[in-house]
Amino acid sequence: MSPTAARITAVDTHDIRFPTSRELDGSDAMNPDPDYSAAYVVLRTDAADGIEGHGFSFTIGRGNDVQVAAIDALRAHVVGRSVGELCADPGTLFRDLIGDSQLRWLGPEKGVMHMAIGAVVNAVWDLAAKRAAKPLWQFLADAEPAWLVDQIDFRYITDALTPEEALELLRRGRRGAAERAARLREKGFPAYTTSPGWLGYDDEKLTRLATQAVADGFTQIKLKVGADLADDTRRCRVARSAVGPGIRIAIDANQRWNVAEAITWTKALAEFDPYWIEEPTSPDDILGHAAVRRAVAPVKVATGEHVQNRIVFKQLLQAGAIDILQIDAARVGGVNENLAILLLAAKFGVPVCPHAGGVGLCELVQHLSMFDFVALSGTTDDRVIEYVDHLHDHFLDPVVIREGHYTAPAAPGFSATMRPESIARYTYPGGTFWAADLAQQKGEAA
Amino acid sequence: MSPTAARITAVDTHDIRFPTSRELDGSDAMNPDPDYSAAYVVLRTDAADGIEGHGFSFTIGRGNDVQVAAIDALRAHVVGRSVGELCADPGTLFRDLIGDSQLRWLGPEKGVMHMAIGAVVNAVWDLAAKRAAKPLWQFLADAEPAWLVDQIDFRYITDALTPEEALELLRRGRRGAAERAARLREKGFPAYTTSPGWLGYDDEKLTRLATQAVADGFTQIKLKVGADLADDTRRCRVARSAVGPGIRIAIDANQRWNVAEAITWTKALAEFDPYWIEEPTSPDDILGHAAVRRAVAPVKVATGEHVQNRIVFKQLLQAGAIDILQIDAARVGGVNENLAILLLAAKFGVPVCPHAGGVGLCELVQHLSMFDFVALSGTTDDRVIEYVDHLHDHFLDPVVIREGHYTAPAAPGFSATMRPESIARYTYPGGTFWAADLAQQKGEAA
Repeated sequence: MSPTAARITAVDTHDIRFPTSRELDGSDAMNPDPDYSAAYVVLRTDAADGIEGHGFSFTIGRGNDVQVAAIDALRAHVVGRSVGELCADPGTLFRDLIGDSQLRWLGPEKGVMHMAIGAVVNAVWDLAAKRAAKPLWQFLADAEPAWLVDQIDFRYITDALTPEEALELLRRGRRGAAERAARLREKGFPAYTTSPGWLGYDDEKLTRLATQAVADGFTQIKLKVGADLADDTRRCRVARSAVGPGIRIAIDANQRWNVAEAITWTKALAEFDPYWIEEPTSPDDILGHAAVRRAVAPVKVATGEHVQNRIVFKQLLQAGAIDILQIDAARVGGVNENLAILLLAAKFGVPVCPHAGGVGLCELVQHLSMFDFVALSGTTDDRVIEYVDHLHDHFLDPVVIREGHYTAPAAPGFSATMRPESIARYTYPGGTFWAADLAQQKGEAA
Repeated sequence: MSPTAARITAVDTHDIRFPTSRELDGSDAMNPDPDYSAAYVVLRTDAADGIEGHGFSFTIGRGNDVQVAAIDALRAHVVGRSVGELCADPGTLFRDLIGDSQLRWLGPEKGVMHMAIGAVVNAVWDLAAKRAAKPLWQFLADAEPAWLVDQIDFRYITDALTPEEALELLRRGRRGAAERAARLREKGFPAYTTSPGWLGYDDEKLTRLATQAVADGFTQIKLKVGADLADDTRRCRVARSAVGPGIRIAIDANQRWNVAEAITWTKALAEFDPYWIEEPTSPDDILGHAAVRRAVAPVKVATGEHVQNRIVFKQLLQAGAIDILQIDAARVGGVNENLAILLLAAKFGVPVCPHAGGVGLCELVQHLSMFDFVALSGTTDDRVIEYVDHLHDHFLDPVVIREGHYTAPAAPGFSATMRPESIARYTYPGGTFWAADLAQQKGEAA
C-alpha cells in the first residue's frame, strides 16, 4: 500500500484508572480522593510504518466511562480518513469535530464532549509528529507560521486576536528560534513542584518535601489551601520557613471560594508572600476573577486548568482577570485550541504556566510550553510548568526533571504513549489490578 | 411498607430519538439537521402509590448515548434513597450530584455531566410534585420562601445574590400570589411561536405561517437568521409585511457570529424593527454579548438556551450583557439551579423568556415561568415562553396553547412523562421505528 493511501483503520478506547486515592497524594480542597484516570485513545492505521497516534482525556475516576463513551461518539469522524491528509492538516478534523451540528448541542465546546475532542485531536498530533520523526514541540516550532495560523479556529475570538495578528506574532516568534531550541536542549524548561503541598501531609512531611524541592533545584513550590484558614496559615508559615524568602510559593484553592471569601482568605495569607493564588473561585467566573485580582494585588491571580475553551480564556485576558494563564493539554480541544490560547496570551503579554500532574499531563503539556518558548513568546522569564512526581513510569517516554527543569523530549511524538503493560493492568474494571481488587472487595463484603 | 420507608429502587434510562431531520422543521444556521432526542430517565420506587419520577436531557441526535451514559453514572447517588426525604428536600441530592468530587472534574457544572444532573434532579421534582398531587408550578408557588431558598446552591453567586436577598424577593413575590394563580388558570401565560421562522421554509410558507400565527393570537414570532444576509433581509421583509407593525419579530442567530459580525448583521436588519437578537455569538462570551448589546440598541439582546449554569447567567447580568434572559429547563442542573437563575433575573430586573421547542422543553419550562409569574416576578409584561408545535403528542400531559397562551397545567407533576408507546417506538436503535429504519438502510446499502 502506498503511503498516501494509508487510512485510519481504528479508534481504540480504554478506560484506565489508577488507585491513587488510597494514598493521600493528590488531595486538595475540592478533590479529596482522586483516582487519576485516562480515557485513552489509540488511532491505528494501515500504513506500513505501524505508527499509532495516542491521546487521552484526564479524569479523576468516576465518569471516566462517560469520557470513553464521548470519544467513541467521535469514531465515525475519524475512521477511514487519509493518514497523510490528517497529519498534513489536523485542523480539518478539529473543525469537523467541534462543528458536528448534533454533537455540538452537548457543549458547545465544553465539558465531556470537548475533552473527548481534545483527546482525539491530540492523538492526531502525536501521529503527525511521530511520522515526522520529531518531538511535538519541535514539530510545532519548525512549522510555517502561516500553516500554524491555519490550524486555529478563530470563531469567537477575532475581537481579541485576528489571523493577521496571529501570523505577525508567530513570525516575530521565529526570530532566534534555533538558538533557543539549542538552549532548551541544553538547560530544559523551568518547573515548579506541587509535591510538598497536598492537604493530606503533616508539617514534618511538608517541611521535608519543601526543603528537598529547593535542594533539587526548584525555585517555586505550590501549596493547596482553602479547606481551613488556621491550617493554611500554619502550613504557609511552615513552608516559608523551610524554603526561605528567595523561593516562590504559589497557593492553590481549587475553586473553593466565593469572590468575597477568596479576597479575605488570600489577604490573610499575604504575610507569607504567596506568588500567586490559583483558582480562587469558579473557573467560569471571569468577572469574579477580575474582582479578586483587583483586590489581592500584588499577589498574582492564576487560573486555567478547568477553563473550558479559548472563548473563556479570551475574556479572562480582556477583563484583566489573570496575571498567569494556566493551559492544560487535555481539557480544551487539543493542540489546535491550545495554539489559539498561547497566541492570545502572547497578544496580551500574559505568561503561560501550565497545569500538569494527574496522569500524563506533564508528558503532554511540556511540548506546548517548549514550543511557546522556542517559537512564540521567546522567553522562560516567569514561566514554569507544574511538576508532580506521579505515575510517570506508565509512559514509554516519561518526563525527565533535572535541576528543577523539564528536559526537552527527544523522542518523536507527543510523549502520550502509555506502556502496554500499564494499560493491561489498570483497565477498569477488567484489568488485572482491578479484577483482583474488585474480587477482594466482593470477598470482604460476603 | 410504610410511606416513610419507601426507597428509590431503580434509575431507568432510555435513548429516545425522533427522526425530525427528515423534514426541515427545526433547521437553523448552526443546526441544519437535528434529530430531536431525549436521554430519558425514570425513577422507580417501592412506594405503594406506584408513582414514578420522569425527567430527561434534550439533545439533537448524535451523542444522545453519551448523555445516557452520563445519567447512568449518577445512578449510585440515587438508588436506595428515601423517597420521602428526597421529595422533602431535592436540594440535598442536587448538592450531592454537583459536589461529587470525581464527577465534578468532567465539568464542573457544564456540558454533558451537568445536563445529566439536570435530568435526574428534574425527575425528582416530577416525583415530588406528583406525590403532592400538584402541577410543579403550583408546588413551587405554594412552597415556603425559606424552603425555596434552601433549595439553591449559592456557591459562586453570592457576589450578586445573597440568601437574604433571595428570601426577600420570594417573600415579596408571594404577595397577591393567589390572585395571580387564578388569573393564570383563566388566561394562561403568553407564548410566542418559532414555527414560521425556520431557515428551510420558502417565502410562501413563511407568509402563510406568520399570518396564521397572528390569527391564532400570538403577538410575537421568531425568525432564524445568520446563514445569508440577503436571504435574511428578504425573509424579515416578508415576515414584517405579513404580520404588520404591531407584532414583535424576534430574530435568532443560534451563535453563528463573531462579535463584529453580530453587530453589523443586526444593524443591517434593524429596519424591520426586530424585537430581540437571540444568541448573536458564543453562549460563553459574556463580554461579547455586552459589546453587541451596547452597539445594537434599541434592538434587545437575548440569550440562555446554551448558557451552562447560574455562574454564567450571573455574569451576563452583572455585565449588562442581556435584555432578555432565556432559561432552558433541561440545560442547567434542574429546577434547583433554575430557581437561582430566576432569582438572579428578578434581582437585576431582567425579564425571563424561556427557550423551548425540541422535544418536551415546552412541557417542562412552562412550569418555571408560571411559578415566576405567580410567586416571584409577579408579572407577565414582556415575558413570553417560546412555543414550537413539535412532538407534543408523545407526552401524557402535552402543553395546550389557547389564544397565543400556554394553558396552566392541572395534572400533578412536571409534565415530563412520555407515552410508553412513544418510548417503545423511538428508542434508539432497538425501538420499532429505528429497527425497521436501520434494516431498510441496510437493505438499500446491500
